[in-house]
Amino acid sequence: MDQNVKPVKIIPLGGLEQIGMNITAIEYEDSIIVVDCGLAFPEDEMLGIDLVIPDVTYLKENADKVKGLVVTHGHEDHIGSIAYVEDEINMPIYATKLTMGLIDRKLTEHGNINNIKRKVISTGQIINLGCFRIEFIRTNHSIADAAALAIYTPAGIIVHTGDFKVDFTPVFGETIDLPRFGELGKKGVLALMCESTNVERPGYTPSEKTVGKTFDNLFNDNKEHRIIIATFASNVDRVQQIINSAYKYGRKVIIEGRSMVNVIQTAAELGYISIPDNTLVEIEHINDYPDEKMVVITTGSQGENMAALSRIAASIHNKIAIKPGDVVIFSSSPIPGNEKAVFKVINELEMKGAKVVFQDTHVSGHACQEEIKLMYALTKPKYAIPIHGEYRHLKRHAELAVEMGIPKENVKILTTGDVLAVSDNVFDVVGRVPAQGILVDGLGVGDVGNIVLRDRQQLSQNGLMIVVVTLDAATGELIGGPDIVSRGFVYVRESENLMEDCREVVYEALESCLTKKTADWGRIKGTIKDSLSEFLWKRTKRNPMILPIITEV
Amino acid sequence: MDQNVKPVKIIPLGGLEQIGMNITAIEYEDSIIVVDCGLAFPEDEMLGIDLVIPDVTYLKENADKVKGLVVTHGHEDHIGSIAYVEDEINMPIYATKLTMGLIDRKLTEHGNINNIKRKVISTGQIINLGCFRIEFIRTNHSIADAAALAIYTPAGIIVHTGDFKVDFTPVFGETIDLPRFGELGKKGVLALMCESTNVERPGYTPSEKTVGKTFDNLFNDNKEHRIIIATFASNVDRVQQIINSAYKYGRKVIIEGRSMVNVIQTAAELGYISIPDNTLVEIEHINDYPDEKMVVITTGSQGENMAALSRIAASIHNKIAIKPGDVVIFSSSPIPGNEKAVFKVINELEMKGAKVVFQDTHVSGHACQEEIKLMYALTKPKYAIPIHGEYRHLKRHAELAVEMGIPKENVKILTTGDVLAVSDNVFDVVGRVPAQGILVDGLGVGDVGNIVLRDRQQLSQNGLMIVVVTLDAATGELIGGPDIVSRGFVYVRESENLMEDCREVVYEALESCLTKKTADWGRIKGTIKDSLSEFLWKRTKRNPMILPIITEV
Repeated sequence: MDQNVKPVKIIPLGGLEQIGMNITAIEYEDSIIVVDCGLAFPEDEMLGIDLVIPDVTYLKENADKVKGLVVTHGHEDHIGSIAYVEDEINMPIYATKLTMGLIDRKLTEHGNINNIKRKVISTGQIINLGCFRIEFIRTNHSIADAAALAIYTPAGIIVHTGDFKVDFTPVFGETIDLPRFGELGKKGVLALMCESTNVERPGYTPSEKTVGKTFDNLFNDNKEHRIIIATFASNVDRVQQIINSAYKYGRKVIIEGRSMVNVIQTAAELGYISIPDNTLVEIEHINDYPDEKMVVITTGSQGENMAALSRIAASIHNKIAIKPGDVVIFSSSPIPGNEKAVFKVINELEMKGAKVVFQDTHVSGHACQEEIKLMYALTKPKYAIPIHGEYRHLKRHAELAVEMGIPKENVKILTTGDVLAVSDNVFDVVGRVPAQGILVDGLGVGDVGNIVLRDRQQLSQNGLMIVVVTLDAATGELIGGPDIVSRGFVYVRESENLMEDCREVVYEALESCLTKKTADWGRIKGTIKDSLSEFLWKRTKRNPMILPIITEV
Repeated sequence: MDQNVKPVKIIPLGGLEQIGMNITAIEYEDSIIVVDCGLAFPEDEMLGIDLVIPDVTYLKENADKVKGLVVTHGHEDHIGSIAYVEDEINMPIYATKLTMGLIDRKLTEHGNINNIKRKVISTGQIINLGCFRIEFIRTNHSIADAAALAIYTPAGIIVHTGDFKVDFTPVFGETIDLPRFGELGKKGVLALMCESTNVERPGYTPSEKTVGKTFDNLFNDNKEHRIIIATFASNVDRVQQIINSAYKYGRKVIIEGRSMVNVIQTAAELGYISIPDNTLVEIEHINDYPDEKMVVITTGSQGENMAALSRIAASIHNKIAIKPGDVVIFSSSPIPGNEKAVFKVINELEMKGAKVVFQDTHVSGHACQEEIKLMYALTKPKYAIPIHGEYRHLKRHAELAVEMGIPKENVKILTTGDVLAVSDNVFDVVGRVPAQGILVDGLGVGDVGNIVLRDRQQLSQNGLMIVVVTLDAATGELIGGPDIVSRGFVYVRESENLMEDCREVVYEALESCLTKKTADWGRIKGTIKDSLSEFLWKRTKRNPMILPIITEV
């Protein structure tokens, strides 16, 4: 390696701190490539927000350098922002077949598919983008057609694992291309960017096939009953296994839930799932077959409010009603934060007489400790950059990299927006770019910020009280009000006295201002706000938003 | 047993469906006793609510019958509503010493301690209340002085386990009085009301003492560093074990967090914890000792926003700042729903350089499957009434009772408010009493209901838009406005056009009303609301609360 070669820059624009919104820019002189472009789901305190997408200011400012977007796999946290970001900066997209099928769906929905160049890449194939060469390497994950990337830069090879596990007996396709990672290791890998999701778990993640055996057993044990199985819409292999068991036990299959229907349709069209003839049944025909001959595969395994299973559990689904004896299988485990929602759905299902099963019905799609170690053992990188995790994951991953023989100073935990310079003799954060998530609310992208969220927070906890006052424009005298309107504060009919007292407090506050001839509306509003909020805190220990409104006629 | 004896009534007023708010009325002719009187923490959708207390309408309507409140142990979900409920209905309280100490604290804070008769009972002791005799039986739990109850009624013996586990090597006091449960079984138990928290877990819950060994190992492995341990404030035995390890390894101890300080003070006064001289240090003196000679025991093990550990992690604690090398031990496991909050605190602590430990540092205080089975095997009840759990727990418990030989028809899953009649030949729900939780918000008890919560929900997701219009009282003409104020909807400075367009929409809606001489304010408001909300949905796909306010001068 030429010692005078410049360092390559690695710039995570999302995906650290909180899981989701994976996107990394890799830059060398006049070339930038982008790896993945996902969305994040809102944190609890982001009230009313639908989703979070990355800030791509840096890419926009360097639009002429951006050569393309390479995508590792088709999960939302890796593809979910593409349609939005392509509105800002048009880049050609490179991905494997199923991944591209799912991206195409998103672009079609968003309406910008016709403007964007897209190219399907096979694993094993290498593409040239600017000064980079990028090789797609087959991996295993909870969605088919996942790839790791070997990015050949003038400064050396960067290996980006994407999300992966090692599955020696995959349901579809072949085992992760471990020999290729070994070959790269022998060639010399500059930096390994390896995912961290399951780094806290010792051992290995079991093969997807183990779940198939559980399904067979469950189908065998429950021959008398209808079976309903909830799982992740994108887990095509899981759905394949359910269909296999259904076929074996002579059951028809209904696919329910919009995202499930979409993914399975795409997967079927592209040959990633094989469904025997006469197995799928439209939901309209659910009553044409006896219960014990049916399987429903549905969304809602995370207790999402409006997903099919939640609607079934709440008896607001228009086609499927739980009957005593129904067997409901959660083929999933709750993502942290979703536990209560999942338990609520389970309670509702069981109250209606269903038997709920959630043990041994799921395996993870992410590498556990021994698999991550294997990745280090094969690629033998000079530098380790843990990715795809909260800080606690990245930290544990960094410790594991050191255990694997990477010198401590060659392991770096990045923060979103860091610019990391990497070459044979450089490994340093040399700058920062803007990288705060952009909030999407309805059609609004970025029009909800901290002030709006803080208002929503206050409104959600305490409601509001509006005080309307009308002043005479000429004399400044009070000619209407004070009228008080409250929402989300207190049940008014039971609190008439309180409202009357509030009016009194405002009236006094107003009087003090008006007699002082305070014509300054700001000061009048301030006085109303302060007196009322002090009064309400004393009386109720609550703190509603107070909105004085003055009109002048 | 006299075949003509009337049935006793068992009436759960809380504690089913959702964990928390445990309270049960037991009634026979002119006698009612109440078992426990806890609070529940608000569900996610109960925005702004501080806590939930039981509806005791039925008790108030039968106040002359109510002979007393017997309390099984001092956890919030069993004692937290006492102070509120005693305001409604004055009943003498019977509890063991530590439990009563904690109740006294609550009543003192609430200001009604002087009005209430209280009597400390020892386990093994029997009291008479109306036609009932009640025996307190020693159990083990995650708080000392927990008791089960044998309630002797004219219809037979009811055994209420409270919360329990079997600890053969308890830290304080003795093993649960298993022989007494056996004796009762030989006498004949009519009904067993047994808790269900851990009924999904096979096996036995380990002894509290196993955690002590883990602490010793952790203290031994981290002699160079400060140790901070977060645990449940009420787990006195846990705190005792930490103090034991601290003493053994020559460390001083700081107790931090209001509820922790309160409980430990009560426990120390009553002799439930023994602290060697010169071990406790006031937090003001934290800097008088080297870090490696300190242990901080703190609240915040559930990631609660304002608890001490969360403030430490967020660098807003005024006495303790994390230093690199600090070892933070979570001696707890997250209660479902708290996972994300706990992970957030862990991430923050690790970013500041702390090492976080959360494995093998906690055991549950609740019986697992084998312990629950043991309770059935000892008491041999005729009827089983699973308590203390969500529906999924009660269901699993009911199955387990059947496995233990109770006939299916003798096992009943109750709903809060059910009136269950029980005697040798009756086991039926014969009525319902009011039993919805009462919401407490600040000083308000019950003044926040569904309408207020629905408003808070809408405000939290979409904010609001206020439209103010002033009309001439004489002519009905528009003389002021429309003025538009929004909060929590959109960042206004960036949306001036949108606001201008909204004004236009309202203006047009108004015109149509006013030219039609619609003097009906309700209709004017309706028209404004409909046009504006249609416009906003089209334009933004959002649905803010719209509040038209009309004033007349």
